[in-house]
Amino acid sequence: MKKNARGSLLAIEPLTQAQITVYLKMARRMDPTRPKPLLKNKRVVLLFYESSTRTRTSFEFAAKALGATTTLISASASSIEKGESLIDTGLTAQALGADAIIIRHPSSGAPYVLARHLNVPIINAGDGMHAHPSQALLDAVTMLDHFRTLKGLRVLITGDILHSRVARSNVQLLTKFGAKVTLCGPKSLLPELAEKLAPGLKLVRDFDEALRGIEVIMMLRVQKERLQGLDIDARDYVSHYQLTMDRVRLAAKNAIVMHPGPIIRGMEITDEAADCPQSVILEQVRNGVRTRMAILAHHVGGKR
Amino acid sequence: MKKNARGSLLAIEPLTQAQITVYLKMARRMDPTRPKPLLKNKRVVLLFYESSTRTRTSFEFAAKALGATTTLISASASSIEKGESLIDTGLTAQALGADAIIIRHPSSGAPYVLARHLNVPIINAGDGMHAHPSQALLDAVTMLDHFRTLKGLRVLITGDILHSRVARSNVQLLTKFGAKVTLCGPKSLLPELAEKLAPGLKLVRDFDEALRGIEVIMMLRVQKERLQGLDIDARDYVSHYQLTMDRVRLAAKNAIVMHPGPIIRGMEITDEAADCPQSVILEQVRNGVRTRMAILAHHVGGKR
Amino acid sequence: MKKNARGSLLAIEPLTQAQITVYLKMARRMDPTRPKPLLKNKRVVLLFYESSTRTRTSFEFAAKALGATTTLISASASSIEKGESLIDTGLTAQALGADAIIIRHPSSGAPYVLARHLNVPIINAGDGMHAHPSQALLDAVTMLDHFRTLKGLRVLITGDILHSRVARSNVQLLTKFGAKVTLCGPKSLLPELAEKLAPGLKLVRDFDEALRGIEVIMMLRVQKERLQGLDIDARDYVSHYQLTMDRVRLAAKNAIVMHPGPIIRGMEITDEAADCPQSVILEQVRNGVRTRMAILAHHVGGKR
Repeated sequence: MKKNARGSLLAIEPLTQAQITVYLKMARRMDPTRPKPLLKNKRVVLLFYESSTRTRTSFEFAAKALGATTTLISASASSIEKGESLIDTGLTAQALGADAIIIRHPSSGAPYVLARHLNVPIINAGDGMHAHPSQALLDAVTMLDHFRTLKGLRVLITGDILHSRVARSNVQLLTKFGAKVTLCGPKSLLPELAEKLAPGLKLVRDFDEALRGIEVIMMLRVQKERLQGLDIDARDYVSHYQLTMDRVRLAAKNAIVMHPGPIIRGMEITDEAADCPQSVILEQVRNGVRTRMAILAHHVGGKR
Repeated sequence: MKKNARGSLLAIEPLTQAQITVYLKMARRMDPTRPKPLLKNKRVVLLFYESSTRTRTSFEFAAKALGATTTLISASASSIEKGESLIDTGLTAQALGADAIIIRHPSSGAPYVLARHLNVPIINAGDGMHAHPSQALLDAVTMLDHFRTLKGLRVLITGDILHSRVARSNVQLLTKFGAKVTLCGPKSLLPELAEKLAPGLKLVRDFDEALRGIEVIMMLRVQKERLQGLDIDARDYVSHYQLTMDRVRLAAKNAIVMHPGPIIRGMEITDEAADCPQSVILEQVRNGVRTRMAILAHHVGGKR
Repeated sequence: MKKNARGSLLAIEPLTQAQITVYLKMARRMDPTRPKPLLKNKRVVLLFYESSTRTRTSFEFAAKALGATTTLISASASSIEKGESLIDTGLTAQALGADAIIIRHPSSGAPYVLARHLNVPIINAGDGMHAHPSQALLDAVTMLDHFRTLKGLRVLITGDILHSRVARSNVQLLTKFGAKVTLCGPKSLLPELAEKLAPGLKLVRDFDEALRGIEVIMMLRVQKERLQGLDIDARDYVSHYQLTMDRVRLAAKNAIVMHPGPIIRGMEITDEAADCPQSVILEQVRNGVRTRMAILAHHVGGKR
């Protein structure tokens, strides 16, 4: 098998600043309401082993805006149910004519397995607790809509960092660009080890203290079930780590509030904070489409 | 948020005769086999919290015949499972670039919630026991294929009216146009209160008596489970309210037989009555596509 | 109802050699990467009462490559759940404007029921244990990529033949063309009666013996659950009927290894045999798209 020239998008980690910049620049030029036929006659397979609204739909709209044909293969209603292996499902999708496979999978590393065995571009749409590169890219696009540069940008990520592929990919992207990233959360959701995710990371346990001077407040979803059996209960979590308007005011004046969604109102964030003027949560969703257009255009479109 | 000019289609109730007539006239000019690119580069999100074949598929075909891109977000396989609120799901769909959201929801009023918080047209594809405006419109289109006018048209609606959004929307549309509408069914499925749904409604308990002179026999689905715990059992229901050929003959000679489907043969209607020459059940399905093309063209298409 | 001119594709059995040849020739001229608008403005309904990856996706890609609009109606998330009959669902799909219905159903004969009551082409995408004609056609296309003619071709089909619609359709196609077909498997999965599937069939119980001189080794999926209660357990099955490289070497030098998928590695076939240079399993998947383009072009496309 001949490997495709531009390869796959599996994680942020191996990318250089220059490579990431290509996506960010392309994303800002994309406009979903003005389709470009860069992927004309191309077929994109969405291979989703986990449910998803925004990621699936925005990849789908992105592919269609570029003129591609898409098809969804989901864990239910497919051979996946009959016990076919991941590799065989991937090879089948490739043989069916997929020009790219967008995969979401509950197991960390699943997209790597596909990339090793297939010769079409694999786009990681979230794998286990590992990576969610398109999310980190669209988050960077959103930050750059509000701040001139990522360099020196003071970003605080708070919540269930232990289980979050969004956090990992964001930390990797931001530190590559010289942002000053702080992580915040209770020990059970943010082990000391997290500091080693990237060089220059800071861990702060006290949310109020961590917020001072922050320009980007990035909140993560905290699922009640995840708290069970931990040393912290939901009520404690809310009182210590929920983003309220009082806390938003502790940050820089021009701070923005981000969340990858779906948000759980009343848990990690209050209604007021989620809907405040500084919240860019829906801008993130909006930027998702153009960022994924850039990803697909880069990996699938044009001459190869 | 700026509200869209043409607004949403949430129910028949607030519409004037003139407004309804716009849909009916447009629908009769639409031809699904001759696509018109009125919705070119538009994106239509189908947000279905309940299962559906004909409504979902006919909106999907209608949107595609107008050149739109569609995507389905269903209650399973999406963030809906993760407990995201209706409003947040709607806002996400809007941020993803939806130019219209077609929603089916088990709770009455859900489309209103979306319409209040979003600024894209919301098309109600059925909400709880409340409304199903596109069904009432396609039913009117079908009646007008067979009768010159709705004014004075003698229509009988029989079945589980209590739980039927189809009945409510039809009653409202028909009485606005001066049709003479009679409702029929046992008390438990048709409470006295139903008379107040619209002015001029008549309630008749005896099906045979109600059928005399009727020009449009509209049957509603009766689910066995709905009869449980009521003062009527399935056998009783069938003997008193099932549409048989003998009963069809009690109506006007040129009467048509309608049913929104899915029909339960042997329950509210016999095979013979469902398949008789006077049955227009499949014409209703056929008209569904052009009616929904008209709805989408009106609310989403053209200059805004 | 006027029946469509070209009719439906329900099974291989009633087709003549000449009729089958039309599909095979057309399939070899189709190229999924160079779309032809033979089905422009046509609507194809995929009516799937069973889950499927490759058949559903390849029909979907085939239809789209020909310019058609497709929609999927699956057993979950549709009126099917509400107890609507197969015929009514089919009539509804037709009334919605389907120009063809592709049906997969767990009951043998379901596509015939639709074909009798509808007047759009019905394409059988697998019905119970009865037939899977598009699979047999794509298998023939694949064999003809490797051998000059089917006449005299020595084909061995091994596995759960009793429950296999793939086996039935292949046996019928191959014997019509004068291939020499041998069936192999334990009595419980291959009853003596199977010999009567087509004239000239040979039954051999010993896999090693059966393999000698074979040019096409066609393996079928064997589900562990199917072995329960039979006179053979999984370990026995594997030792007697699993395709290993040692066994591949018993066949003709230029033999190819086929499997309709999904394969269960370690059960009916080893990793080595599934992935060996003689394996054409992924070619079968690839040929599925162009074969289904041919089927759709023949039954739905062009002047009628």
